[in-house]
Amino acid sequence: MFLENINSPKDVKKLKISDLKILADEVRSAVINRISKIGGHKGPNLGVVELTVAYHYVFDSPKDKIVFDVSHQCYPHKILTGRKEAFLNDDCFATVTGYTNPEESEHDFFLVGHTSTSVSLALGLCKARDLNKTDENIVALIGDGSLSGGEALEALDYAGEYDKNLIIIVNDNDQCIAENHGGLYKNLKELRETDGKSVQNIFKSFGLDYRYLGDGHDVEKLVQLFREAKGTDHPIVLHIRTIKGKGLWYAERDKEAWHAGGPFNVEDGTPLNNSEPDTTVHDSMVELLNRDEKAIILNAATPTSFGFFGEERADLIRRGRYVDVGIAEENAMAMASGAAKNGATAVFGTYAPFLQRTYDQLSHDLCLNDNPATILVFSPGVYGFTSNTHLGTCDVQLFASVPNLVYLDPSCTEEYLAMLNYATTQKVHPVAIRVPNSLKPCGFKDDTDYAVTKYKVVTKGSRVAVIATGQVLKFAKSAAEELKSHGVNITVISPRFLSDVDSELLSDLLKDHKYVITAEDGQVDGGFGQRISAFYGNTDMKVLNLGISKKFHTDFNPDRLLSEYGVSKESIANFVLKLVK
Amino acid sequence: MFLENINSPKDVKKLKISDLKILADEVRSAVINRISKIGGHKGPNLGVVELTVAYHYVFDSPKDKIVFDVSHQCYPHKILTGRKEAFLNDDCFATVTGYTNPEESEHDFFLVGHTSTSVSLALGLCKARDLNKTDENIVALIGDGSLSGGEALEALDYAGEYDKNLIIIVNDNDQCIAENHGGLYKNLKELRETDGKSVQNIFKSFGLDYRYLGDGHDVEKLVQLFREAKGTDHPIVLHIRTIKGKGLWYAERDKEAWHAGGPFNVEDGTPLNNSEPDTTVHDSMVELLNRDEKAIILNAATPTSFGFFGEERADLIRRGRYVDVGIAEENAMAMASGAAKNGATAVFGTYAPFLQRTYDQLSHDLCLNDNPATILVFSPGVYGFTSNTHLGTCDVQLFASVPNLVYLDPSCTEEYLAMLNYATTQKVHPVAIRVPNSLKPCGFKDDTDYAVTKYKVVTKGSRVAVIATGQVLKFAKSAAEELKSHGVNITVISPRFLSDVDSELLSDLLKDHKYVITAEDGQVDGGFGQRISAFYGNTDMKVLNLGISKKFHTDFNPDRLLSEYGVSKESIANFVLKLVK
Repeated sequence: MFLENINSPKDVKKLKISDLKILADEVRSAVINRISKIGGHKGPNLGVVELTVAYHYVFDSPKDKIVFDVSHQCYPHKILTGRKEAFLNDDCFATVTGYTNPEESEHDFFLVGHTSTSVSLALGLCKARDLNKTDENIVALIGDGSLSGGEALEALDYAGEYDKNLIIIVNDNDQCIAENHGGLYKNLKELRETDGKSVQNIFKSFGLDYRYLGDGHDVEKLVQLFREAKGTDHPIVLHIRTIKGKGLWYAERDKEAWHAGGPFNVEDGTPLNNSEPDTTVHDSMVELLNRDEKAIILNAATPTSFGFFGEERADLIRRGRYVDVGIAEENAMAMASGAAKNGATAVFGTYAPFLQRTYDQLSHDLCLNDNPATILVFSPGVYGFTSNTHLGTCDVQLFASVPNLVYLDPSCTEEYLAMLNYATTQKVHPVAIRVPNSLKPCGFKDDTDYAVTKYKVVTKGSRVAVIATGQVLKFAKSAAEELKSHGVNITVISPRFLSDVDSELLSDLLKDHKYVITAEDGQVDGGFGQRISAFYGNTDMKVLNLGISKKFHTDFNPDRLLSEYGVSKESIANFVLKLVK
Repeated sequence: MFLENINSPKDVKKLKISDLKILADEVRSAVINRISKIGGHKGPNLGVVELTVAYHYVFDSPKDKIVFDVSHQCYPHKILTGRKEAFLNDDCFATVTGYTNPEESEHDFFLVGHTSTSVSLALGLCKARDLNKTDENIVALIGDGSLSGGEALEALDYAGEYDKNLIIIVNDNDQCIAENHGGLYKNLKELRETDGKSVQNIFKSFGLDYRYLGDGHDVEKLVQLFREAKGTDHPIVLHIRTIKGKGLWYAERDKEAWHAGGPFNVEDGTPLNNSEPDTTVHDSMVELLNRDEKAIILNAATPTSFGFFGEERADLIRRGRYVDVGIAEENAMAMASGAAKNGATAVFGTYAPFLQRTYDQLSHDLCLNDNPATILVFSPGVYGFTSNTHLGTCDVQLFASVPNLVYLDPSCTEEYLAMLNYATTQKVHPVAIRVPNSLKPCGFKDDTDYAVTKYKVVTKGSRVAVIATGQVLKFAKSAAEELKSHGVNITVISPRFLSDVDSELLSDLLKDHKYVITAEDGQVDGGFGQRISAFYGNTDMKVLNLGISKKFHTDFNPDRLLSEYGVSKESIANFVLKLVK
């Protein structure tokens, strides 16, 4: 056992090079201990164990600085930098997050959860180092899947002009979450197959120096490679071949399934919590593809969003009905505009935090041109991701402000289906639809005409109206039920349109309502409710906006977070009781 | 004269190939006629004259579809597609815009003004074509400068996987607006110097087929190249060497100065309207660089924003004090975060519409990490660009919603300087500062402590308060003056902080004010004023938000547009008089 004596990278350096393999095995076991019991990112972490051991053997962290791309492969790094208990000791699992975190350790430099950022961030560290006149090594560790992102490609290009120390480790496991997409992956394959000797070389095309290592699990060779690169006076790419999921046979065999997920039986990989995935979105896409031969689905490397896997996905790709552009959200958004322009029924969807990458393409490429593409915003609001690295709590801020875009927000499966049907049959405007993590049927058919901005009155009362967005409508409805028992009948409104106000309905409310409460499942500042406040600004209507504060909230329970800001059945009922007293 | 008979691309095809050179000369003269009299994009259009003539000779527009990147090189295309009068006849200049525009012509497919979008949009057209089962050629025309943008690189990568017809014309004039930056330009140089034969080839690295033409002004060779590519069954890059500014000796000599601009004397290029550029920003940067040896300025290919040119810029670049990353805003924003993290005083600035590209990097890379970089938002609001292709009227929507970011809005030079001083000396938060197109001194030293959100009371009155953002504060002040003559004394407030409300001051107003009017220089929906409405939602204060509507407004006079929405001295005074009556 070496790991018991490793409390910082300094301790790694005390070992003999021949002992590093054993240390790596111990690190891998520690990773497996954690992921098998509480889940997390699996394949990415198992693949970089030796690489990380070698890194800390050769480089001097935290003087030398490593930036992890996405940082979902930082577990071995955490184990070697004073945080091993979070992997070895079940009681300590909660002491670390799944991403690099400067608050946890001086060996972590950025809080990161989005892909393709490492080379840019590292270049920034480099530029400051040069002004500081210090000589530390700056290292970016980026996976092959992240290379296709615009930010990474822009940074590789600039790195090709930069002329001082920068080490870019390309951890090539020949896999994104799903298979890779893009021409550059043909070149990576060629490089792997020629042991790095192929003359055609994407990195050299960007002006970068280059080294190749075929066995990224040979820790002694890794040490040798890192020693050669350490102290380089110019940017250099170290292209290292690794195996995603290394060390668990079932993970090595099905890399996509073992990218991330819940706890499992280490013996054979069987999952400990087996839940059936919701197929609502998948089925709605199948229905669309069947009814409309011009329909095409675009995705950016998040296979779980649409739920197409295996042969079904491969077949759709072959037939030009499904496109995975890889991690390249900007390209996907603009392609959706182009496809809609030329008559296709284009649907682009990915997770809300990653759609932040497409704001300009949404505004300039799609909405300025008013092309009728459909955008699916997966996991919007507080019920989406709950880590500050992946927040989607500002989706309304982003989507509701863009001219020409209709932003729809379903509260149940039937509404989602009706909205999708509207979006994919009209040819007038781009339409974006929020797709909550958990879509539940409400039991009535939705025959709304979504061509006209009309909020829906769910319950008609008087004095107080609650306007609640899709995912928190339930609180307004149950508060209304509760209030009935107090003899108070409030109006509950489901807006469904977040990009525009229903002036007629809001004006109508002035007749017999004195108070409006808005409730939303995201950030209140710049959000939906403030538009309602503004509408009533010059009237006698009193408006209260409920939603979470402007902050990078993290590791929260969505219902609990909302209730802290008054978005709960109890709070809404209490607010109403106070108002009507 | 051939041009007089050219009313559509069909007429181009009637000419003998040997006549095309003469047609090209006539097209160039028509371009010069327009730009010398009313200005516009110069170098880009002069460089693609022969290329465009050859395009329309070979391809069948509008069945074949060409997507112009940025589209600031579409004048020759407009001349050949039925819009020549807008170039030949001074009275018709106003009949076309400076960018491709589907409302003008069936030969234009997208409204475009941002760079690096053409290959993505073309790929979208391709995907729809494949579903349509038609066989038109899809062509993207992209300049070398635009290649460094993330969206373009993502699209080149995906094109390398795509397996049907797509023609990517790379118009290589070896120049961005300023000189190119990035390693890929070394490869373009190598390709030019080897007549396209260099084995290392960035396009081939992306998996793309490739042809090179060294003289992009030889129209017969262009025709031959296009004929060979037409009908290709896979994506192909046609790398064509052209000369930016071709045909005007002074434009060929100083490519940066002749990228775009106002009218000039054709004889020698002397400008007809000689206005001295405002050096406030430039001088403030020089001061910063002198007082802080850790200061570094980052820019993304918009040299006019900071105003560094020639040897001064080259020297700063050499010394690591100024970085032009090329068209690569995402990389610049993340680099600013990295540089700030490692102790530099990082300032990144570019124009508001292009900062839309960095929303995710602003939020995730910079603000989540709370690194104290400074972002300069040039040309924000309606006083920035006035074409729908370049709107910066949603900057508040973008910047004010992001947690941790302080968004400041100066109303005069002194405030800008004080804000810049605050931003670049504090080490607590990222700070973004709006930099209006025209900064004017107000005559008083600003000694505000910008570490604390405090709005400034400009004039103290009662009953009505007007809160007006920096660029429209003038209207509130002059309305207040005017109202005095009616015996009405209003309060005028300059908020300066757009990312937060000054609760204390706003609460104070409740004592002796009944009405608040907000006025802003951008989109009212999701903007600053709605936050004030929300603050007062549950009080007796009446609030009226003034600002422009949610729309891609275009070709407007800023003052006139604002006044249509009540943002003018007269309107504000009238609103107040109505309220206090």
